[in-house]
Amino acid sequence: MNYSMTARVLGRVMLLGAAALTLPLAASLIYSDGAAGAFLLTAALLAAPGAAAALLLRKPKTGMQPRDGFAAVALCWLVLSLFGALPAVLTGDIPNYIDSLFEAVSGFTTTGATIMTDIESARPSILFWRSFTHWIGGMGVLVLALAVMPADERGLHNLVKAESTGPSSDRIAPRLRGAAARLYLIYVSLTAVLFVMLAAGGMSVFDALIHTFGTAGTGGFSNRALSVGAYESSYIEIVITVFMLLFSVNFSVFYAALTRRLAQIRKNTELKVFLCVTLVSGGLIALNLTSANAYGGFAETARHSFFQVASLMSTTGYATTDFNVWPEFSKTVLALLMIVGACAGSTGGGLKISRAVILLKSSFRELKQIIHPRSVNVVRIDGRAAPDTLAAGVMHFFAAYMLLIFFGALIVSLDGFGFETSFSSALSAISNVGPGFGAVGPLYTFADFSPLSKVTLAFCMLAGRLEIFPMLLLFTPSVWRR
Amino acid sequence: MNYSMTARVLGRVMLLGAAALTLPLAASLIYSDGAAGAFLLTAALLAAPGAAAALLLRKPKTGMQPRDGFAAVALCWLVLSLFGALPAVLTGDIPNYIDSLFEAVSGFTTTGATIMTDIESARPSILFWRSFTHWIGGMGVLVLALAVMPADERGLHNLVKAESTGPSSDRIAPRLRGAAARLYLIYVSLTAVLFVMLAAGGMSVFDALIHTFGTAGTGGFSNRALSVGAYESSYIEIVITVFMLLFSVNFSVFYAALTRRLAQIRKNTELKVFLCVTLVSGGLIALNLTSANAYGGFAETARHSFFQVASLMSTTGYATTDFNVWPEFSKTVLALLMIVGACAGSTGGGLKISRAVILLKSSFRELKQIIHPRSVNVVRIDGRAAPDTLAAGVMHFFAAYMLLIFFGALIVSLDGFGFETSFSSALSAISNVGPGFGAVGPLYTFADFSPLSKVTLAFCMLAGRLEIFPMLLLFTPSVWRR
Repeated sequence: MNYSMTARVLGRVMLLGAAALTLPLAASLIYSDGAAGAFLLTAALLAAPGAAAALLLRKPKTGMQPRDGFAAVALCWLVLSLFGALPAVLTGDIPNYIDSLFEAVSGFTTTGATIMTDIESARPSILFWRSFTHWIGGMGVLVLALAVMPADERGLHNLVKAESTGPSSDRIAPRLRGAAARLYLIYVSLTAVLFVMLAAGGMSVFDALIHTFGTAGTGGFSNRALSVGAYESSYIEIVITVFMLLFSVNFSVFYAALTRRLAQIRKNTELKVFLCVTLVSGGLIALNLTSANAYGGFAETARHSFFQVASLMSTTGYATTDFNVWPEFSKTVLALLMIVGACAGSTGGGLKISRAVILLKSSFRELKQIIHPRSVNVVRIDGRAAPDTLAAGVMHFFAAYMLLIFFGALIVSLDGFGFETSFSSALSAISNVGPGFGAVGPLYTFADFSPLSKVTLAFCMLAGRLEIFPMLLLFTPSVWRR
Repeated sequence: MNYSMTARVLGRVMLLGAAALTLPLAASLIYSDGAAGAFLLTAALLAAPGAAAALLLRKPKTGMQPRDGFAAVALCWLVLSLFGALPAVLTGDIPNYIDSLFEAVSGFTTTGATIMTDIESARPSILFWRSFTHWIGGMGVLVLALAVMPADERGLHNLVKAESTGPSSDRIAPRLRGAAARLYLIYVSLTAVLFVMLAAGGMSVFDALIHTFGTAGTGGFSNRALSVGAYESSYIEIVITVFMLLFSVNFSVFYAALTRRLAQIRKNTELKVFLCVTLVSGGLIALNLTSANAYGGFAETARHSFFQVASLMSTTGYATTDFNVWPEFSKTVLALLMIVGACAGSTGGGLKISRAVILLKSSFRELKQIIHPRSVNVVRIDGRAAPDTLAAGVMHFFAAYMLLIFFGALIVSLDGFGFETSFSSALSAISNVGPGFGAVGPLYTFADFSPLSKVTLAFCMLAGRLEIFPMLLLFTPSVWRR
């Protein structure tokens, strides 16, 4: 590991974290909820070593290797979560540090799984902070650091590569500060539009901010125990459905739309598949719910179906209804959507649509190859032939993804909550969704899990958000050698 | 498709099926249970077109392509199951044909999932036949056909390739009639030893035969509702544990032992991993059961733990206790063993140990490659470097395996039995285990599933037994073109 380089990067990210804490600090002063001291202390604890590292360490002569980038990113996320957990512990809103760490990791990774059982009596500034971590984590802290701070070292693109989502060929490639800034500009604009639309729909400014952060980061923390269902407003449900889907789309699509490169959008395989899967899943669930007479009429059924499809596919995790009591078929469709997840290069998690497409196309190619052994078959993505290395990478990722789900479910099963709960909580953590089924359904919390399960699930969330390999690298001794 | 070649192969297999029916016919005459007519009629229905195809069709000039071999094997298994389902329908033991087809497929594929709710009042000859299908299916009908009948066509090794289990480099390669005969000789010898040991342990000849067939084929059909637990004999439980493990080992290991090539056994990676996984899983479950005070003493706990580990890992599916009420952790370990399955080249099913090893080693290699991008890492199996194409094939197989489980669980979920039941019944069918968890636990049957679920699960069993691609080929239009 390139220690001085990693320390410089970490220092900057800690400074950024301290800066981010000024917003909940302001919220605390506005609401006079007595948490100002906790935020100030945490900000100071982040800023002091952060400033020291960023200012005192000299720029190293050697650039950053991919493994250094991956390990540095994993370390940054870990450190931010460790500090981000402090305010809730200091104020006593979450007395236990492991619980608060779970909540902070869940926030930054845009998972939205909570251990807070009495959410509506928590301090406003604490609720604000946990939702704000969604927004920070959604687009990525390193991308933000690159966008707002001087970055002249070589190899910094390795940081961004580790933090952005999806297989490499589908990633927007923000090699330059300009590209990172552009990403954040789109992100901020969409966020602002959503906020105005929610506030216009009758939400208080505070509630609108909370749900804007949760939707934009595809996180899912709410300040209401009934989540979005608490507002009983079709308008709000539809707005959030649309924006959950928008934030699941590769941001390069918005950039292409802004620069009027419509041909590029038209041949975007992932976007087409994403829309198809949304419509087909929503339709199947609506049919299933109608045949079970679950809701009053067609409009209500369709609204609930598409909200939950958008929520679990975007890996947000908001709910308008207790989908845990839906018919088994609808729940299975939702579980499969949780595995697939959103598009690459979005704020959403999961395996990613593009990976699922490559996985399916690769399997079909294998079948074709058996039928016509001497034929040459290629996997086509966006109208171009995808290189074989891409397909191999996706296969490895899928295998690691499933192995991690099995590992997580095995540890969680020690708590004895049943197969549905163990499996869906591991899947939900790795795909950064939030709720699952059974004892972790949308109306329940993760409070009753053992500390071991909470730490395991927090690890799974970080591994899922950073696409597995960066987190695994931290446990490889050779990475820690100079 | 090479129609005349396929017809000749199918004809031989049908003749073999007719010949196999003489054994239950004899059983029916011995027990005078009135099923003789049903077996005679079924044998005649198989023999007539079988003899016609085998005798009348001339030997084709062109050899068999891999796809023809794959499709022919899938077709043979389908036809045998379709006819094998007739006796139970004709005698009325299973009045519904779909139910009987499920049972026949479950028998031939050595799954052992049953729809018979009152097993102990069924006709002895019908019980004999369903258990005998395990024994036939265990080593493979095409391998048997090759061993006992004249086979002079070119390309017949493609049949055997499609039917034997595991990734190609680990398969015993019975390219010659001699090798196929050798396989069956080992199979028959081990079967005979097991039968003698069970009969010596106090089982009636009939019960010993039933449980010998079920163990040797790693099938799991019993003539007792409580499965092996009904005998309440530690001796019988231990004998069956040991033999379930023996039949999970690659038969090439026995051949190497017979020919005193001990060095080859010593460097067999799959065998070592298989033994490790057995010991570790059994130990973990015994610990878990002890901490839950599930059984009386250490000996009883260990016996139940290792029996169930051997049963689910070998994909047999016998039970000595209702493992469905075991603590969640033990059940999760068992579920993971169901995915991994037995060794390649055995009568067991599942993903196969060798594939799991390649999957894990490949993922570690990916990690190493990130740490040291310029280093050359190879996956080593049996002390040799495995070719990259092998790893790629395993990845594709794993992806197809998981996709098939998801697909099966989705269809079965329409019956509304809950996540644990849907998921474990699909997994159990594809891995050819038999029982699962929840409503398909070892004390329950598949009787209450809808016909759609039964057909879907039967498809999954065949796909799992023939390693997925042959069954998928049957649904590919181009395979059916001349």
